[in-house]
Formats: sequence, C-alpha cells, structure tokens
Amino acid sequence: MLNARAAVLFCRTGAQYATATAATGVVQGSSRCLHTFPQTRPEEGPPAVGLGLELPHLKRTGCIYLDYNATTPIFPEVAAEMAPFLFEHFGNPSSGHTYGRVCKAALDTARGRVAQLLGASDPLEVHFTSCGTESDNWAIYGAVMAARMAQLRLQPQLQPVGPPPHVVTSAVEHPAVLVHLKHLQDQGLLTYTAVPVDGEGLVDPDQAAAAVQPNTALVTIMHSNNEVGAVQPIAKIAAAVRQAHARAIAAAGGDAQGAATGALLVHSDAAQSTGKVELDVEALGVDALTIVGHKFGAPKGVAALYIRRGVTLPNYFHGGGQEAGRRAGTENIMQVVGLGAAAVVARQEGPQLRKHIGEMAERLLGAVRAEMRAEDQDKLWVNGPRDPARRLPNTLSLSIRGLNSALALQRLSTQLAASAGAACHSADGASVSAVLRAMKIPLEFAKGTLRLSTGRHTTAQDVDRAAKLIVEEARRQDILG
Amino acid sequence: MLNARAAVLFCRTGAQYATATAATGVVQGSSRCLHTFPQTRPEEGPPAVGLGLELPHLKRTGCIYLDYNATTPIFPEVAAEMAPFLFEHFGNPSSGHTYGRVCKAALDTARGRVAQLLGASDPLEVHFTSCGTESDNWAIYGAVMAARMAQLRLQPQLQPVGPPPHVVTSAVEHPAVLVHLKHLQDQGLLTYTAVPVDGEGLVDPDQAAAAVQPNTALVTIMHSNNEVGAVQPIAKIAAAVRQAHARAIAAAGGDAQGAATGALLVHSDAAQSTGKVELDVEALGVDALTIVGHKFGAPKGVAALYIRRGVTLPNYFHGGGQEAGRRAGTENIMQVVGLGAAAVVARQEGPQLRKHIGEMAERLLGAVRAEMRAEDQDKLWVNGPRDPARRLPNTLSLSIRGLNSALALQRLSTQLAASAGAACHSADGASVSAVLRAMKIPLEFAKGTLRLSTGRHTTAQDVDRAAKLIVEEARRQDILG
Repeated sequence: MLNARAAVLFCRTGAQYATATAATGVVQGSSRCLHTFPQTRPEEGPPAVGLGLELPHLKRTGCIYLDYNATTPIFPEVAAEMAPFLFEHFGNPSSGHTYGRVCKAALDTARGRVAQLLGASDPLEVHFTSCGTESDNWAIYGAVMAARMAQLRLQPQLQPVGPPPHVVTSAVEHPAVLVHLKHLQDQGLLTYTAVPVDGEGLVDPDQAAAAVQPNTALVTIMHSNNEVGAVQPIAKIAAAVRQAHARAIAAAGGDAQGAATGALLVHSDAAQSTGKVELDVEALGVDALTIVGHKFGAPKGVAALYIRRGVTLPNYFHGGGQEAGRRAGTENIMQVVGLGAAAVVARQEGPQLRKHIGEMAERLLGAVRAEMRAEDQDKLWVNGPRDPARRLPNTLSLSIRGLNSALALQRLSTQLAASAGAACHSADGASVSAVLRAMKIPLEFAKGTLRLSTGRHTTAQDVDRAAKLIVEEARRQDILG
Repeated sequence: MLNARAAVLFCRTGAQYATATAATGVVQGSSRCLHTFPQTRPEEGPPAVGLGLELPHLKRTGCIYLDYNATTPIFPEVAAEMAPFLFEHFGNPSSGHTYGRVCKAALDTARGRVAQLLGASDPLEVHFTSCGTESDNWAIYGAVMAARMAQLRLQPQLQPVGPPPHVVTSAVEHPAVLVHLKHLQDQGLLTYTAVPVDGEGLVDPDQAAAAVQPNTALVTIMHSNNEVGAVQPIAKIAAAVRQAHARAIAAAGGDAQGAATGALLVHSDAAQSTGKVELDVEALGVDALTIVGHKFGAPKGVAALYIRRGVTLPNYFHGGGQEAGRRAGTENIMQVVGLGAAAVVARQEGPQLRKHIGEMAERLLGAVRAEMRAEDQDKLWVNGPRDPARRLPNTLSLSIRGLNSALALQRLSTQLAASAGAACHSADGASVSAVLRAMKIPLEFAKGTLRLSTGRHTTAQDVDRAAKLIVEEARRQDILG
C-alpha cells in the first residue's frame, strides 16, 4: 500500500523553509536546497504552514478530516524538526560520544518545552513515555505499589496484611484507566470506586470526595472526555478529595489500622486537553498528569507523564537509568523531538488555536442545523456540557435520533473521517459507548451519535461540506426529511 | 543543537530512488523528483545504500561509529519507508475511514515481515511494543500474573496463599530483566534465582535446570549478551528447564501444594541478536522472545514481543483493544513501519550481513594486534566465548590490562564512538560492568575494557583507523610501549 507517490518530496528555497519552521524557532533557514513539506506537490501551490491552513495531503484524499480527537496529522513544523532525527541523528542519548551528545541535547530541549507548556516548575518533572496508555497505567501501578510498599514496611512479611489500596475514578475514563483498574482488582492488588457523571458528562467533586476511604492511594479522573468533550473540575476535585482523605485518616485513628499507610496521589488524564484548553499543573493541583503527543500534532508513539517533584511514584518500566531513573528504556528520540516541537506550537498559538477550533466546531453545528428542516431540529442533540467553559471547543458529539451512525460512517468513510465510538480503541461503532451510557443518553439518540472533532488545519469549507454529507446521509436513512 | 544543515535534503532521480529502495521491494521508483537520502550532499557523491557502504552522515562527523550494540543508524532503506508516515500518512489504525485504513494496512504488512524474520508461524504472534525494556518487563510481569491468577483461582481470597511465583534468570541479563525482577521481589510478588555464567559468559543448561522449582513460572535468559557477545544455548536451556519443571511438579505431588499452579514459560531477550545470528523461534523452542528495532537499523522507540500461539500471558499495557487485545495503546505506526522494513533488510541480507560484520570485527582485532608490539600482546584480552559459533560476530569486548577505558573513550569521544559499560543505560564506564564481574574477569583487565561493535555500514577504513586510535591512546596512558 506504500507507493512512490507517497514518498514524493520537493526541494524548496531556504526562505520557504525558514518561514515554515519559524513557529518553533529552532531550525534556522539557509540558502541551500532544504527539507520542506512533501505533502505539497508543485501543482498544489505553496506549502500549507500555520494555523487554519489546509494541508495538501488531506485535500488530496478528498476525505474531510474531522477526527482530531482520534489522532491529529503531524503538524508540518513538527515533521520538519523530526526529519533530521529520521535521516541523520541516531545516537543513543546515554552514549558519551559525538553521536550520543546530539541526541541528549535534543532530549533536554524537548523536556524543557513540554515543561513550559504544562507550567511545570522543573523539566525533570516531565517523563517521556510511549503512549497515553503507558502514562495512565504507570500512574495507577505506581500509586498502588507505593501503598503496597508502605504496607510491607509496616508488616515485613512476604504478603501485605490488610485490605489492598483503594482507587477513586470516574465512570467515563478511557479504557487505559478503567481496564487497568479492573485487571489489578482481579489480581487482588487494589479495589476501586468509579463515581458517576451527570447528564452532561461531568463529575461532582463532592461525589468524588465521598468515595475516598482511609486506604485510598489514588484519585484518577480525566481532565477532558474524548467523546463528549466534558472538561472536569479537576482543581475542585483535587482539593475536595485531599480534604476528604485527611478526614478519613483522622477518623480511622491515623495509621493505626495499617490501612491508611500511603499518601493520596491525584492524577488526571489530560490526553485530549493539550492545545484545546488551558492546562497548568499548578492551577490544577495534581500530582501527576498524562499528555499524549498524537492528540496535538506530534506523532503517535510518544506521550508524557508529569510527576510533581517530591511525589513518590514507583516505576512502571524497570531497567536502565533513563529519565532520571524513573522510566527505563532507550529514549524514542525522534518522537520526543516531535513532542517538544508540538508543545512549542501549542504554547505559541494558544488562544488563537483554541479560537479557531472552537469556531470550526460552532460553524459545523450551525451548518448541520441550517441543512435540516425546522421540523427536524428536535431530532438533533449535542452531547456534553452546555456551558462552553466546561467543554473542549473542538469536540462536537452530535446525536441524530434514529440514525444508524455506524452505517453512516461506513458509507461516508472515503468522504468524511469521524468517529462513532471512541476511535482510538474500537472501529466498532455499533454498540453504544460506555461514556454515553454513563451519561444516560436515550438509546435512540446514543445509537445515532457522530463524534466530530475539529483541529488546527480544519477549514470552513471542510465543515460546510461535512454538514451537507451528514444530513444527506440521514436523509438516505429516512431519518431526516 | 538542531540546525539547518541537519535538515538538508536533496532531490535525486527516480532511478536512484528505485535502486535505493529495491532491497525492501515496497516503494517503487518513478520518474518524479523523489524522496532520497538526505545524509548525502551533492559534493559527497552518490548516496550510500546497501551493505558495507559508508553512510555520508557518519563520514561527515569524523567520528568512527563502532557502537552498533548501543544503537544503530536508521538504515537508509528503512528511513525511506518511514518518511511517508512522517509527512503524510497519520491515521489511527483503529479508525475505519480512509486515513485509518492506510495505517492499518501498513501495520499488518510490518507484522508479517517481522513474523517472517523470526520464523513465527502466525503474524499475530508478533506484538509491537515501545522498547526492549517493555518487552522484557511484559514477559516477566505477564508470567508472574498468570501464576498469581492460577493461585487465586484455587484460593479465591483477595490475597493468594502460598509462596509467590519463582523465576529463573542469569547473572548477565540486561537491567530490563534484573531490575524488574528485583522490583517485583521487593513487592513480594515473586522470588528469583540468577544462575551464574562461566568465564566466557555462557550459561550451563544443567545449572539453569537445577534452579527450577515446582513454582517456577518463568525462565528468562538472554539470547546474546550485549557486552561480550556470548550467545546462550537457548534451545538446550529451554529443553532442560522444561524437563526439570515436569520432574519438580511430579516430585511435589502435582498441584497438591498449590504452589506449582502455572505453566512454565520460557522467554529470551534477543535484543542484540537480530541481524547478527540466525534467530528462529521454532528452533529455539521459546514461548516468548524480545527483539528491539534500534539494534538492527530500525529507529529507537519500537520493539516487539513474540508470544507463541496458545501461551497464556496476561497483558502489561491495559486499555484499548490494539494488538489483538494484548497490548493497549495507539500504535506507533511510523516506527512500526521502520521495524518491518528493517526486518526485510535483515532477512534479505542474512548471511552476507553476518559475514560483513564478522569480517570487520576480525579485522579490527587484527589491526589492534598489529599496532601493538610483540612484547605487549599478552596485555590484550578478548572477552567472551572463543568459539565463533557461540558469539555475536560483530561484538569485540577488548580488555587492555591497566588501561583506563572510561578516560580513553572520553578523550576519543569525537573521533571514536564505542562503549565501556553497557552504553544503552549508562554513560559511566568507570565502574566495572556486572557482566564482566559475573565472568570473573580480573579487575586490571575489566577496567580496561572497550566494547566495540561493528555493523552494516562499518568499513575497513573505519576499523583500521579505530585500531590506531585505540593503541595511540593506550600509549598516551603509558600502558603500551
């Protein structure tokens, strides 16, 4: 399925290259024939670089991309910074020689950039991982092992005595959280409580606090939901659960029972939040935070776990001393460079990027409504919080009563790229997602749900055409008149 | 540290491109200006493609690369196949639309190629991971959790009763094995025995078998050693430990004690073996095998765990249903494509590649000896098996009595890239490596150890120059006359 067309590159002038990479400020232009953007062919005009511009390789397919929550294209500026690490720099950052040093320096630069994006006070709080799943799994495993270790210190037998650590989470988490919790519960290594959400997909901080026990070692609640875009009140939740934990410990008589032996760790999966809403670890008050590269213009295969300085979190990967001894494994230097470059784009574009993706999502909703007859308007439902301050600006979870959304996406699959379920782990949109079930969305709406998500390179033409396609398909299914 | 020079690309003719990619047989030539090898600048002549040819970007640094065991350059053919996934194809393989399908097909192709390289009967036995550490950690965690699960089924309390599962390993494993075992032992989740090696770094199958207990759940012994190149007799070890386990179970009266509840799993870390020696999972008789992309021309950030069909091995990453439900996390499609392309190179070049890297290592040793005076020859020691059939052909662990190897590498760091310790997890060569300690290499030799490793693009000039540099440095240290 690879072919020569896919590998076509062109030489452009240094000036064009310099413009293209100016956003990240690292790769400087030169007068030579430089590495530019292979998405562009001569007949397609100048390369698309920057916020809001169409990417030629998306235009070429004829398939509108409104699936940014599943994964984003690698932003051109990001690809340009990665390319030297595909073609030239390959050293092992642990090596002390010429080849290693170049990569070690690139690693440090990327770490600083990600720290800056998150408002972390120390770059060493950023730990690169291979995906959001690893980051989430690590936070859970680490918190549970820290608590277990504390139990073993009190009772130095081979098996800890007393109940295993307890975890509080929500009903709408990504499987990287819920499936891992289930696994560790099945192994007798933890118990957990999933607090419900309301009809808008939001967690009530008081309900989270009420679930806390003396032996709660971890509260892990996502920053924003991948399907409906609900942004959880993490700062309030963090404060509430910490208070509740202190009260629970006190009520249990301190550590007397050997149950409340560990500190409470607050983690949030912010996989979907980067570049879409403000994200600051100080403001959130979390101990650990997951971010994922391929949700904001970096490639798949790289993510990070922020861990606040001073927080005890045993390792998940054990082996060499990489990542300051906290995550073993030779660093994926090319992708880490991409994560750093994407962090620069997200930070520099900030409010303009959020404004653009929000306007595109609003325009999409408006266009769908405009395509529909007045008497059909009540067949359309937008899932998630109504308050714009409590939702991701780019996420539009649209339910059309009676629509077969899986069939719709299948029929449109070469014209419109979107999701029905959660695209990053299931191509099967036929069953209703756990998120919509938790929100108690009526079945006839839930089954007709399209998850549309805009991004940095979405255009007005994209959303206008998409709206037409969606309504036409609903008519084909005799759902709309 | 990035600069425009690093990003320089050139356009070449389609014919050149077609030649360049003929080895992998996937990207076809065309008459257009095509994506070729940016390592080459016009003044440097034709691009280096193929076995034994110098890579221009290595030549340019002026630093001889003899550290292939730490990491390899991304082979040009591999980079060429990856490039379209950096610049164009970005879909989530789980998505059913146009963008997802391209990546899903690429994933399937890569899986088939890796399966073919390993002699696996079913591509679904290949599971892509993020690094060798993940693969090794998974094999250990999975085997221990399978045994624990079996115990919990017999005794359905929250805590299993009886001793935790036992693991047999060797004293010369990579930290990804030894540090993980130590962690899980500290947590009371397993116990383990590390069998010794002889003076050549080899494990005796009988000693491995003698370490097996009724509750042994896993035997994990590396296929080849990263530092001294010892190739372990894995097929014999696998047969011996399986027999010993059956005997131990029978002697303990079957499952009567509730201790011997799981099956015995045999795993081998073959991180250093791919492309250097024959590797066939059927001939080895293993249940699981680790391979690592950046040790054979693929990028860092991708590896695989082979798991034999029918073997129960609980997951390490929990979440979405990727990798047939066995390894959650959005696939790192660009790097996976690279792993597949590198597998094709390794398989197609097979014996010629092994011959080349062996000849280069032999020439290096010969050149070092030739540079040394006759009366100094006894100051030189080659670590590892003397039998060429029992060692990696590319690996030359050279000890010069009295040399400060850390100082030598530091002084030579811009002229010669090599390792003292195990480069992938430590830049500190001052302390003697655990492998050399386990082999009981005398301290005055061990401290003077240089780990030199040749590869696909090592040239005769490289090794001749390296030999001179090494002997000159030893003279500077007044070690050689």
